[in-house]
Amino acid sequence: MTDHVYKKIELVGSSKTSIEDAINNAINTASESLHNLDWYEVVETRGNIRDGKVEFFQVTLKVGFRLGA
Amino acid sequence: MTDHVYKKIELVGSSKTSIEDAINNAINTASESLHNLDWYEVVETRGNIRDGKVEFFQVTLKVGFRLGA
Amino acid sequence: MTDHVYKKIELVGSSKTSIEDAINNAINTASESLHNLDWYEVVETRGNIRDGKVEFFQVTLKVGFRLGA
Amino acid sequence: MTDHVYKKIELVGSSKTSIEDAINNAINTASESLHNLDWYEVVETRGNIRDGKVEFFQVTLKVGFRLGA
Amino acid sequence: MTDHVYKKIELVGSSKTSIEDAINNAINTASESLHNLDWYEVVETRGNIRDGKVEFFQVTLKVGFRLGA
Amino acid sequence: MTDHVYKKIELVGSSKTSIEDAINNAINTASESLHNLDWYEVVETRGNIRDGKVEFFQVTLKVGFRLGA
Amino acid sequence: MTDHVYKKIELVGSSKTSIEDAINNAINTASESLHNLDWYEVVETRGNIRDGKVEFFQVTLKVGFRLGA
Amino acid sequence: MTDHVYKKIELVGSSKTSIEDAINNAINTASESLHNLDWYEVVETRGNIRDGKVEFFQVTLKVGFRLGA
Amino acid sequence: MTDHVYKKIELVGSSKTSIEDAINNAINTASESLHNLDWYEVVETRGNIRDGKVEFFQVTLKVGFRLGA
Amino acid sequence: MTDHVYKKIELVGSSKTSIEDAINNAINTASESLHNLDWYEVVETRGNIRDGKVEFFQVTLKVGFRLGA
Amino acid sequence: MTDHVYKKIELVGSSKTSIEDAINNAINTASESLHNLDWYEVVETRGNIRDGKVEFFQVTLKVGFRLGA
Amino acid sequence: MTDHVYKKIELVGSSKTSIEDAINNAINTASESLHNLDWYEVVETRGNIRDGKVEFFQVTLKVGFRLGA
Repeated sequence: MTDHVYKKIELVGSSKTSIEDAINNAINTASESLHNLDWYEVVETRGNIRDGKVEFFQVTLKVGFRLGA
Repeated sequence: MTDHVYKKIELVGSSKTSIEDAINNAINTASESLHNLDWYEVVETRGNIRDGKVEFFQVTLKVGFRLGA
Repeated sequence: MTDHVYKKIELVGSSKTSIEDAINNAINTASESLHNLDWYEVVETRGNIRDGKVEFFQVTLKVGFRLGA
Repeated sequence: MTDHVYKKIELVGSSKTSIEDAINNAINTASESLHNLDWYEVVETRGNIRDGKVEFFQVTLKVGFRLGA
Repeated sequence: MTDHVYKKIELVGSSKTSIEDAINNAINTASESLHNLDWYEVVETRGNIRDGKVEFFQVTLKVGFRLGA
Repeated sequence: MTDHVYKKIELVGSSKTSIEDAINNAINTASESLHNLDWYEVVETRGNIRDGKVEFFQVTLKVGFRLGA
Repeated sequence: MTDHVYKKIELVGSSKTSIEDAINNAINTASESLHNLDWYEVVETRGNIRDGKVEFFQVTLKVGFRLGA
Repeated sequence: MTDHVYKKIELVGSSKTSIEDAINNAINTASESLHNLDWYEVVETRGNIRDGKVEFFQVTLKVGFRLGA
Repeated sequence: MTDHVYKKIELVGSSKTSIEDAINNAINTASESLHNLDWYEVVETRGNIRDGKVEFFQVTLKVGFRLGA
Repeated sequence: MTDHVYKKIELVGSSKTSIEDAINNAINTASESLHNLDWYEVVETRGNIRDGKVEFFQVTLKVGFRLGA
Repeated sequence: MTDHVYKKIELVGSSKTSIEDAINNAINTASESLHNLDWYEVVETRGNIRDGKVEFFQVTLKVGFRLGA
Repeated sequence: MTDHVYKKIELVGSSKTSIEDAINNAINTASESLHNLDWYEVVETRGNIRDGKVEFFQVTLKVGFRLGA
């Protein structure tokens, strides 16, 4: 890390498959509009249940990216 | 919740009347520029005091909304 | 408090009106099947948003009650 | 805020009516002996239950006030 | 979410395979005796080690379900 | 630990004598109706004061037990 | 608890003998100048070591007492 | 504070010199695109090490600013 | 530390210059009316912003001091 | 668990594949120099992003092992 | 405390008798290989249950000691 | 970060001058016996008071370093 300034945003990704997939989905969506994504931090893992089974893994994460060029 | 991606932002609403009103004020303001607001989470409740009485209830909350269409 | 043993359960009450009402709803439901309810502790306040307005106040609380007679 | 020094004390107010009222009761009592009360922060909300109903809302809050003139 | 009241219980599921599997095991067991399971929240992930390798992934989670019909 | 599923409940035990005794009282009461109690975790220690002296040590603990046979 | 207002102060008691004794020492000292002491909450337990042995158990606790008559 | 609504964003500033300088760098960058910056809260202080010495102080902070005019 | 009893109070010091200076200002003010100040613990660092620059560093700290002679 | 004494160390494992794999990598490395590894606790999950995709899952965990024979 | 540097390690001591004894056991073991042990901080208290009774009190603590001479 | 494994240790550095200096002192001492120091995280800032003035700034930090070559 240099003397750049970074911003962190909070996202929730979800997946029917895995926690890793939910993280990837959130970051893929963020990378469509933001460049210089640098790191993520998992804040919370939860999900919904349907018919007695996990339907979605929902992962809240913070994503850090560099401001400016 | 589906496999959409959600973003959470942090707001502080205030009201002279009640905690519920402070929450509503923050969400009303957010809904002017953001669509698909889905849920909120209260993070902190505080306020200022004037002349020995509560002047404002100030509620920090996170608001989640769906990204994309 | 005496040397009785207490149990704490975690409930989520909701209300369209107020945080106090959501607390009351949870405790009213608990009191239908449990006696000796003694105290509650608010754990979390959140809710859902519909059409840019708060629809429900949802309050997670722990409720303590005395075991045995 | 200037370069004054502030002190924070911890109080518990209660009310049969509402959380806001419990906050007000604690601050009213504090303002009888302390001047320059400046802000409050809610630390915890809990209460007792009697006959299956909420009897009191008890709010623990920190109250900040300016030291000296 | 409507004005129903929900209860949250705390479970620990385990699996030799994955964290997701440990979550599923806990929810499957809960669904044998409880209906209306609605959501889960991961509280803690830990496990035991045998012969220098992970033997079990143990996930503590809270599971929320609707009370009444 | 095997691939069993465990449940954790939250209890408050109290004792005029010691913290250890308060823990034992809670677990003794739990063991009257629950089998397979496996471990406990202390969550909080508090108590009441009477005539300027500690009257009770009150210990909140979570108790884990194996579900099923 | 009634609609009285309570104040909580933070004390550190110590003892060469036990955690319970450290709690008692703090409350005994508080009761010399304060009346209406009502409850305590343990915040932290620590201590110093001398010659490879525990010398003191030091317990930080909050003590709540009723304001006014 | 009035009945305005505030937004809080999370930034990471860094500096080779001091923690205060890292805070200033983050706020300076934020003030280039945002007006009405009102307060900041330090969330975390960390940094990287190069050749056995601190290279950067990295401070994560939340910055609050007033929405609307 | 001996078997004395200590009290901890919570103060907020501020400084236009540095975090260290804000700590010193709070302790200097406390030492005007309290003797036997023994240690401090930083609880929170925040501050206000004016014209896009840090105006004050505000440090909340707990200060411990020995009761009695 | 017997009356043995255990030590806990904090490690960060990483993997391009999964969270489980990152945990395994950390424990494998620890088991090269330490015997009697007994359990682990996940403390934090984060990672870096490269070209808009997760590059590594980085898991901080505590690992407990028995001291002495 | 002087300008020495201290290291903190995390240990788990256990005892069939008391929490204090579990703390002592951990520190006695640490003092066999480490000198200059200075203080400890209790992080967690838990234990296992056998036949419906507490078998062990297990106390996780951090122990601080001075590095160098 | 690559797929290396990192270890984190907890140190307390102190300084009569500044928080930054206390951090540097801890890291300088660690670098005498450990290579590949990579990052640090501030956990706590506290200190002692002598004659009504701050004598030492004491900073607890975690230091991460790469294991193996």
